[in-house]
Amino acid sequence: MKHIPLKHPILQGNQIMADKNRSRLADHSICMINLMSSPGSGKTSLLEYSLRCLSQQVKIGVIEGDVATTLDAERIASTGVKAVQINTHGACHLDAQMIASAFTSFDLNRLDLLIIENVGNLVCPADFDLGESFRVVMLSTTEGADKVLKYPSVFTYADAVILSKIDLLPHVRFDVNLFTQTMHEINPRAPIFKVSALSGEGMQSWISWLLQKKEEDSM
Amino acid sequence: MKHIPLKHPILQGNQIMADKNRSRLADHSICMINLMSSPGSGKTSLLEYSLRCLSQQVKIGVIEGDVATTLDAERIASTGVKAVQINTHGACHLDAQMIASAFTSFDLNRLDLLIIENVGNLVCPADFDLGESFRVVMLSTTEGADKVLKYPSVFTYADAVILSKIDLLPHVRFDVNLFTQTMHEINPRAPIFKVSALSGEGMQSWISWLLQKKEEDSM
Repeated sequence: MKHIPLKHPILQGNQIMADKNRSRLADHSICMINLMSSPGSGKTSLLEYSLRCLSQQVKIGVIEGDVATTLDAERIASTGVKAVQINTHGACHLDAQMIASAFTSFDLNRLDLLIIENVGNLVCPADFDLGESFRVVMLSTTEGADKVLKYPSVFTYADAVILSKIDLLPHVRFDVNLFTQTMHEINPRAPIFKVSALSGEGMQSWISWLLQKKEEDSM
Repeated sequence: MKHIPLKHPILQGNQIMADKNRSRLADHSICMINLMSSPGSGKTSLLEYSLRCLSQQVKIGVIEGDVATTLDAERIASTGVKAVQINTHGACHLDAQMIASAFTSFDLNRLDLLIIENVGNLVCPADFDLGESFRVVMLSTTEGADKVLKYPSVFTYADAVILSKIDLLPHVRFDVNLFTQTMHEINPRAPIFKVSALSGEGMQSWISWLLQKKEEDSM
């Protein structure tokens, strides 16, 4: 995957497809979440925990985006939830066309909630609307609170932000107050969920938000 | 920054400039390191520690690549080493032209070692030769051993690999044996340094390698 800055034509093409995806999901009353973070922030662990709580009450599907391997889709499938793996083969983000192609692997009449785990990358995925209902961005406590300012685009346009791995707070130098303050300054409307998928701390608030957004989206 | 896959022309243009950079560095007997990792793996912390050990015996400069802010250049400057900040304003990697421009901020006659801290991203920087002598890739223990297979390009072409934050090993589920075995399979020639920039453990081996490569490069 090689890159060239081409501001409008690429985004316009992606936007047309994203709008089609959004319209298609609306026809089926499906809420779609686009989950983004750095590699290793804990997206798959968050999903494993969340799906085990939700899969009895909500019809869920997962789309896994990775440069290579099917490791994450296998982890999701072990929860009993259907997961479709997209391998980008070097590309640094998912785009709306890839998501449209993944739709064909699901029966959309039998879904309430579709969660996309984007390629682990805090830069490129921020530019690509996939047709999602909500964008959720995760940062782990091991990455440092300065990342909000260093990667502003993805945090500015998030509908919710998850601070993960809070079980590690006693062992790392993460300034929670600085993180919270910076997030409120650049994006005051995004709620912040502080969670540990290991201990379960904070997970109920995140899961309740997810259920509430699914309800709002299907009304 | 919007992206389109354009395999050859972009890389060819970048390669021409990278070769010019390499030739220019050779004229001045400067060894250049391209340091890559995810956001928050600890590149800047590694450099702060390394520069404090090295700056009395080696003439060093640092090029900091970030999407936004000058936070990292300020941290490096506090060690007494000159740091030049490149802000990519949304772009997900440094390219050889950006490095050529940064050269103008240094007196190349007064440098032995130039270290580039690339944009925090395990995907895109792997494709762009900057004219470096050696590529060093860092993974932190909090990211998970599966990242080697999930982001194969950057690890396959590394000249050395640093496993950082080993002080956190008692608190995270990181399979060191799996990591080591996978690295040896996909890239047997790259030495692996297991370090903690917090405790200093393993840092001397990494710094010795850096000094040795600088000597080899200037012979």
